[in-house]
Amino acid sequence: MNTDTEQKIQTAFSTLLQQMDASQITVRKICDSAHISRTTFYTYFSDIDGLYRYLEEIALGGMESILNDWRYLDFRAFSPNEPFTPLLKMHRYILLHESLYAAFMGMHGSMMFRQKFTTVLGASCASFVGRQIHREVTEDDFYLQFYVGGIYNAIYYWLLMPKERRHTPEELAISETKMLRRIISDMQKA
Amino acid sequence: MNTDTEQKIQTAFSTLLQQMDASQITVRKICDSAHISRTTFYTYFSDIDGLYRYLEEIALGGMESILNDWRYLDFRAFSPNEPFTPLLKMHRYILLHESLYAAFMGMHGSMMFRQKFTTVLGASCASFVGRQIHREVTEDDFYLQFYVGGIYNAIYYWLLMPKERRHTPEELAISETKMLRRIISDMQKA
Repeated sequence: MNTDTEQKIQTAFSTLLQQMDASQITVRKICDSAHISRTTFYTYFSDIDGLYRYLEEIALGGMESILNDWRYLDFRAFSPNEPFTPLLKMHRYILLHESLYAAFMGMHGSMMFRQKFTTVLGASCASFVGRQIHREVTEDDFYLQFYVGGIYNAIYYWLLMPKERRHTPEELAISETKMLRRIISDMQKA
Repeated sequence: MNTDTEQKIQTAFSTLLQQMDASQITVRKICDSAHISRTTFYTYFSDIDGLYRYLEEIALGGMESILNDWRYLDFRAFSPNEPFTPLLKMHRYILLHESLYAAFMGMHGSMMFRQKFTTVLGASCASFVGRQIHREVTEDDFYLQFYVGGIYNAIYYWLLMPKERRHTPEELAISETKMLRRIISDMQKA
């Protein structure tokens, strides 16, 4: 696969999704924006839905495999001001695919993406926290949903922010790690 | 205005929005679901967009006026296990308009509603927290966005939960108040 052309298609789609709903994006608009022919587009993707699913998989699948690391970690192995590795890696990955996440999380993004994102994050987080507090953490746990929603919104505003005023992935992950330590400690007491 | 008919229209819209996108909802579908005539519908609303904006205003305007109470409050006036009044009132209000919020926040809801919701909550919250910590809290503050996103997601899951397993508005508001006290204390140190 010619990754250069694929990258052009991906950029065109992300840019368009920040301006219009996914249902308004056509192959024609993508080709115009990426300066490629329709024939080239169809070499890579069967249709717009195929492209959408492929990019959603880059965003969510990539995040899921990074968050999988959580199953091997214990928070006692980290010093208090150190970020948990999966959170740090997740933010670096998001920054690498910045326009893609901004598009999916933005005004023309989808609630479905939001839900899948929080589900992926919630599942990894629940298993990690569960091991730390020695009991099962279920999907309806207030702290879990609060934490996951908090991260989603923090990332959303992070991407909205002009680059020069943004926190680094490290700073963001350190703040999120602190919140998670607090929540684990609250859940241990509960 | 005949509030009984208005309620029927509101219920029909909320029910439909839990099954399909707003763009797929027609006056015909609402009339069929509410068992009213098209003439009756048009007595109340000029079109679907008018209805949508009216219901969005019930959800967001109602919440905004409740959250306004925050400008008169000081968290030191509350005992540690007591919920902040605006949070408690907000959850009672949401429960009263449960199907409306479930529709706007659900799979067929809109990212625009999510953003307006977090903006309304964020603005009140920022002014309240700012007065407690004696400095301005801006929109790009990590703790603020984390807190607001946490509440949004907690409410989202609260409404998804079967009624018999749900926390009461009091329980939810107590947990959220505890988180807010923690965050205020972290921000005071920062």
